[in-house]
Amino acid sequence: MENATITDAIVKDLRFPTSLNADGTDAMHTDPNYSCAYVIIVTNTGFEGHGMTFTLGRGTEVVTQACKSLFRLVKGRNVKEIYSDFASVWRALTSDSQMRWIGPEKGVSHLATAAIINALWDLWARIEGKPLWKLLVDLTPEQLVSTIDFRYITDVITKDEAVAILKSNAQGKEEREKVLLKKGYPAYTTQVGWMGYSDEKVKDLCKKYLELGFTAFKVKVGINLKEDIKRCRLIREVIGYKNKLMVDANQIWEVEEAIDWVKRLAEFKITWIEEPTSPDDVLGHARIAAELEPYGIGVATGEMCANRVMFKQLLQARAIKYCQIDSARIGGVNEILSVYFMALKLGVPVCPHAGGVGLCEMVQHLQMWDFVALSGTSENRVIEYVDQQHEHFEDPTNVQNAHYMPPTAPGYSTKFKKQSVAEYEYPNGVAWQHMFKEGIFPEPVD
Amino acid sequence: MENATITDAIVKDLRFPTSLNADGTDAMHTDPNYSCAYVIIVTNTGFEGHGMTFTLGRGTEVVTQACKSLFRLVKGRNVKEIYSDFASVWRALTSDSQMRWIGPEKGVSHLATAAIINALWDLWARIEGKPLWKLLVDLTPEQLVSTIDFRYITDVITKDEAVAILKSNAQGKEEREKVLLKKGYPAYTTQVGWMGYSDEKVKDLCKKYLELGFTAFKVKVGINLKEDIKRCRLIREVIGYKNKLMVDANQIWEVEEAIDWVKRLAEFKITWIEEPTSPDDVLGHARIAAELEPYGIGVATGEMCANRVMFKQLLQARAIKYCQIDSARIGGVNEILSVYFMALKLGVPVCPHAGGVGLCEMVQHLQMWDFVALSGTSENRVIEYVDQQHEHFEDPTNVQNAHYMPPTAPGYSTKFKKQSVAEYEYPNGVAWQHMFKEGIFPEPVD
Repeated sequence: MENATITDAIVKDLRFPTSLNADGTDAMHTDPNYSCAYVIIVTNTGFEGHGMTFTLGRGTEVVTQACKSLFRLVKGRNVKEIYSDFASVWRALTSDSQMRWIGPEKGVSHLATAAIINALWDLWARIEGKPLWKLLVDLTPEQLVSTIDFRYITDVITKDEAVAILKSNAQGKEEREKVLLKKGYPAYTTQVGWMGYSDEKVKDLCKKYLELGFTAFKVKVGINLKEDIKRCRLIREVIGYKNKLMVDANQIWEVEEAIDWVKRLAEFKITWIEEPTSPDDVLGHARIAAELEPYGIGVATGEMCANRVMFKQLLQARAIKYCQIDSARIGGVNEILSVYFMALKLGVPVCPHAGGVGLCEMVQHLQMWDFVALSGTSENRVIEYVDQQHEHFEDPTNVQNAHYMPPTAPGYSTKFKKQSVAEYEYPNGVAWQHMFKEGIFPEPVD
Repeated sequence: MENATITDAIVKDLRFPTSLNADGTDAMHTDPNYSCAYVIIVTNTGFEGHGMTFTLGRGTEVVTQACKSLFRLVKGRNVKEIYSDFASVWRALTSDSQMRWIGPEKGVSHLATAAIINALWDLWARIEGKPLWKLLVDLTPEQLVSTIDFRYITDVITKDEAVAILKSNAQGKEEREKVLLKKGYPAYTTQVGWMGYSDEKVKDLCKKYLELGFTAFKVKVGINLKEDIKRCRLIREVIGYKNKLMVDANQIWEVEEAIDWVKRLAEFKITWIEEPTSPDDVLGHARIAAELEPYGIGVATGEMCANRVMFKQLLQARAIKYCQIDSARIGGVNEILSVYFMALKLGVPVCPHAGGVGLCEMVQHLQMWDFVALSGTSENRVIEYVDQQHEHFEDPTNVQNAHYMPPTAPGYSTKFKKQSVAEYEYPNGVAWQHMFKEGIFPEPVD
């Protein structure tokens, strides 16, 4: 491997004015400006690693500060040494004896960890000249598992077990890789039903995505039950009952409220209710799951799950029927891999959260690795897809016939175009300066 | 009430070089520099509110950034309006539709919320001319409960139930206030057994605190079982078996490891094992609690518990026998009050975490309110006490005969002395500049 040393990190606050079109609106997030903390790790040999964590606008400046503060823990390190014991580097970032107090392993500091860790994986994949999914697939079971810190999850899975699972599922890997390259990986769309969209727009979008080959559709619910019923009916009228329909409440409800509300939507044959309540409420989700089971409705959550310990409990408590890992949250790729292992062991399919900025770009790699090397199947699994903000990436997603086609360029698909950075860096990018001048957004006060 | 408007906030990063003496060292935090993000809320009438959240040194700069970012949500507000609907202000701080993504309600953004909220309570108490505990005691049940946001906890307690509990426990309030003013509130000491202390120092400190009237002692464990056994034996030799001994692992263990390790310490009659594993692992704590119950050892945790939803589950799952609220964590006083109500309803005594910087100063107010107005008892309850960093406060704790004596000055005891701020503001304070110059600590790189 390239004998490079990490010399610097460039950290940027990028924000896109998505709230102007109500894109991404839901019961809790009424005006998101899809944003990210973007980290470029620089080496002394010219290789760069591009990583990011997703945010919703305000507060990104806090995450970028955390990225800068955490970066000192990897600065000066040799890349060979990092990748030969990646779990230790991950632990160094998450368990610094002073910094861990402001987490630990949650919130801002863990989002920043994800951005840095994701940049390190992008760097590794670029050095190897492979897209990340292929790098993961080609690692030996021992190499792959060596990147995971098993702290706090050994009561569910150990390092040795993880290696054994990979080995026993290795048969058929080459065949599955061929299938993947040919057919891609199935996607569902959330784009038909953002909260702020009109009925007419929802209807038109359902038709559009049906024509594009989609067979699974997700819609936002949770503010008004009558409106939710009306909207579900509208969508079912367009997509019929052979296609899948999922609903997403984005944490709006109390536990009992969630149960009552979702039962009222059961007639629309709901595959899953996503984020019915607080992302931290394992026992609450378990209760909701048990109550909705007779109605054939599963519970899904994960996009705001804090870390592997929370995922562990959601899985242990049978609180989720669908495990929604998010590529920009928890501590980046290393920790997400541990969730895939726990989910497989406890029999829960992973259906990743995506959308936002860069989430689709990243998470496809992980799910493709899972298909080829770990679970070996896409049955009962699907990746969220939203057709927005892809134009800002050098290697955007390529979705054909409602399937993510495997990335071919080296890296984690996380490198922004120079032009997009110049326009959307906050608050000094050209587009923002223009919007401030036009009064479309207020200028930030210090 | 004073008709004031909030005009500004001064946010400071204060750090104390406690690592130089190994004070505060434990199995996970080997070199803490006790620190805080300190927020001074300024009004147009001269009243100020002083609030803080505790940190361990590095990373405080991230929390101060978050304080600045969140402050815009209270700037310009009228104080009358704030205190007449404090729960709404609390929710505005914790549920901003863009900012909540970087939490929600956990980690850096929630620590910053705590600092601001604590400053608002200090301001209120100063305006009323009362110490905080007395302000809380004097609020009507409806007023007190109106400060709490019950989102995500109504499956355990509702607003109406909380009011009813306060009303039914009101009898004897005046009598209990007299008892409190006379006798104070019982404390235990952690100061006999920081991880980095020598045996001789431990022995001497045990003798010292025995002489000061202490009857409960806590010691750090978790790095080396033999050493832990040796240390527990040493302490029991000095304090005997009539006094209480607690041990604290500061999250070092896996679930199964915790069970095995603590069983080996059972002979020393351990009252509680504190933080045996990840602070997020409700189900893990429940398992440890069940396994240690036959040995008469309770599980205690809470100082890194993220929010009321996590406390709710620790209580629901019977995972803790002692509920350790922390005055600088979760979202400040309002959210901590909700934990007191849940703990009382589910029959778990609150034994607050303290120490650090300002934690003793703050938490005594809350526990004293609980004694007078809520639980009405100090049975099986005790506040942690560490005799360090009190000299920096204008109204430091007053511990007599191992009891916290009730504060009398208006406020939340959170105002730092000007001199301490001038010396320990990081990195420009006089003391830090001196230590950089002397090479005691390296100068921070940007």
